[in-house]
Amino acid sequence: MSKMDRRSLITGAVAGGVAGVAGTAAYMGSQPPKVVEKIVEKEVAAPAVVADRVEIAMVATWGRDFPGLGTGAQRFAKSITDLSDGRIQVEYFAANERVGAFDSFDEVASGNAQAYHAADYYWKGKHPAWAYFTAVPFGFTYSEMNAWIRFGGGQELWDEVAGEFGLKCMMCGNTGVQAGGWFNKEINSADDFNGLKMRMPGLGGDVIGKMGASPVSLPGGQIYENLVSGAIDATEWVGPWNDEIMKFYEAAKFYYTAGMHEPGSMLAAGFNAKFWADLSDTDRAIISAAAAQENDVMMSEYNAKNGAALTRLINEQGVEVRSFNDDVWDAMGEAAVEVFEETRQHSDLANRTHESFLKGLSDIGGWFVNSNSAYVSQRQRVLG
Amino acid sequence: MSKMDRRSLITGAVAGGVAGVAGTAAYMGSQPPKVVEKIVEKEVAAPAVVADRVEIAMVATWGRDFPGLGTGAQRFAKSITDLSDGRIQVEYFAANERVGAFDSFDEVASGNAQAYHAADYYWKGKHPAWAYFTAVPFGFTYSEMNAWIRFGGGQELWDEVAGEFGLKCMMCGNTGVQAGGWFNKEINSADDFNGLKMRMPGLGGDVIGKMGASPVSLPGGQIYENLVSGAIDATEWVGPWNDEIMKFYEAAKFYYTAGMHEPGSMLAAGFNAKFWADLSDTDRAIISAAAAQENDVMMSEYNAKNGAALTRLINEQGVEVRSFNDDVWDAMGEAAVEVFEETRQHSDLANRTHESFLKGLSDIGGWFVNSNSAYVSQRQRVLG
Repeated sequence: MSKMDRRSLITGAVAGGVAGVAGTAAYMGSQPPKVVEKIVEKEVAAPAVVADRVEIAMVATWGRDFPGLGTGAQRFAKSITDLSDGRIQVEYFAANERVGAFDSFDEVASGNAQAYHAADYYWKGKHPAWAYFTAVPFGFTYSEMNAWIRFGGGQELWDEVAGEFGLKCMMCGNTGVQAGGWFNKEINSADDFNGLKMRMPGLGGDVIGKMGASPVSLPGGQIYENLVSGAIDATEWVGPWNDEIMKFYEAAKFYYTAGMHEPGSMLAAGFNAKFWADLSDTDRAIISAAAAQENDVMMSEYNAKNGAALTRLINEQGVEVRSFNDDVWDAMGEAAVEVFEETRQHSDLANRTHESFLKGLSDIGGWFVNSNSAYVSQRQRVLG
Repeated sequence: MSKMDRRSLITGAVAGGVAGVAGTAAYMGSQPPKVVEKIVEKEVAAPAVVADRVEIAMVATWGRDFPGLGTGAQRFAKSITDLSDGRIQVEYFAANERVGAFDSFDEVASGNAQAYHAADYYWKGKHPAWAYFTAVPFGFTYSEMNAWIRFGGGQELWDEVAGEFGLKCMMCGNTGVQAGGWFNKEINSADDFNGLKMRMPGLGGDVIGKMGASPVSLPGGQIYENLVSGAIDATEWVGPWNDEIMKFYEAAKFYYTAGMHEPGSMLAAGFNAKFWADLSDTDRAIISAAAAQENDVMMSEYNAKNGAALTRLINEQGVEVRSFNDDVWDAMGEAAVEVFEETRQHSDLANRTHESFLKGLSDIGGWFVNSNSAYVSQRQRVLG
């Protein structure tokens, strides 16, 4: 429905000055008549301001006020309202405030809610291509992911995957390179993954599965209890800033930095596709800009806060920081190749997504290595 | 002036339905009465929409439609209008369409225009701290710069520097790591910079000055003619995508990748400070979101397009790609230390800016190296 069509559904007149208007009209979308209401700014002696009002219920996979993921999603929700001067009202529901974290997908796909904020790899059981739109093993870093999504064909494939489920998704935050995880023993060889029960979602989980581990996918709010109870032996979550808050160090002292599983985990704002299509161009522009802003701001916050948190983990919690050795990385690489091969067998769409990812890794990643990595290594060498 | 104050200046009433209102009012700002106009959306049978209209004249240091820098600035200008549904009108002037590239600063500081899009290191002659808000030698990459500006104290210092000149600036695009430059001879040692006339703005220019070169700052539109005529021997500009368009290879065949001078050049949207302060919260939110969006989008475009351009430069133009050797990097490092020492002597503000930069390089850069660089080097090693 176009903006003009939608406006033409609005009945009732504004007689100037201050007036409350309770316009109602039939709405052709899959949702109740949320879009077709009107607001009148109440200001004494000012002309009436009347425009289409939009209401969005946004569910999320993050706990209320969880730093970074949660606060970022909440900031995104608020910025939509701010940019529209209150015309687009977003009611935000953290995990379990309306539905459970992993029920966010169905809530929005069904049209019960209009939007979610999540990591799309949580839906890889529905289609493995979803994983590529958060992070895949040995995949893109933050800057590379952005380039692939915006200018390397990524968004078009994401639209295809999301479209199969009645969704429209966009980038809305990133955690950067995630830490390799928390273990209650040292990982000295690939064999140490054998028999390990570890929380790791996405294709990364499949990789450690190939190495003999038992990967499980748990939302953030359920990890600590499982780790402390021994239901899982190990977990990855995000990085120092977030991991410190989760107190994983109480149950696992060995903390591995840079892992292969999520080199730049992109968060997603997902919208019910019908709801999205029915929005005006302006409303789509507002939401897209708010999402792009959050994409930039959230990554900045993680990059600014992870370093200090890592220092605190070491100095105040006695965490033992380790790096996976080359043998472990090599075994992960071999397992990842197997996982990718299986993934592309799933469907034409999964295969095309993987092909596009590979091309991006070569073209965009090639430049990134030549420029960013080459520069940073000289900076470190020269400045120490 | 608050939004309410400004609204209270508006006279005239809207009697419902379609109405054209030509409201005028005194405006207390430093600009002509651009903010106080009103628009009425003309739609048959729809209620009147009346809101403050804002007009922005935006000048830029880039040529019209120049890919990346120019098209990005133009996209930013357009997105402000789109997000406000046409209420904020931005008239964009490329370099020389209203004032010369380097006259953009005075045009906005004086209030003749409301905004510019530029690289703020062009103004380092007015205050050396400006350089830190584009790029400095051995400085931040894109992700690190974003973290420093948004969460590491960078924006506060930028506000102080800009405030001294009646400006308010924000991030609005980035080119990523810039190439080392175009030379008509190979650079095999630091001595090869001796006597070289090279275009390089910012503190990078001062660094090669310490190495015996004569640095000059020229806007993009004047570089080619100076290089071809021999007025300069060498130049840096941006990176493969932009440099290919400039045809520098016609006069200089040796192209050095990653340089020290601009590891992540941040572009700025600068506003007349009085104009900015007088905007409503909503209008400031709209402009800030548009700028953050462009920050994200422009960097993505550079990262996506540089790789293919480098391949074309090599295969189609016979460009000889080189990397500076360690001796050259070391000499640049020594010269940079001298330049920084002189810069911090300039003033308390320059010194505090440098101190904050150093802290960011340690805290944010330290994490970035531990996470991003560590991961990418393993990815390259494992996948080849």
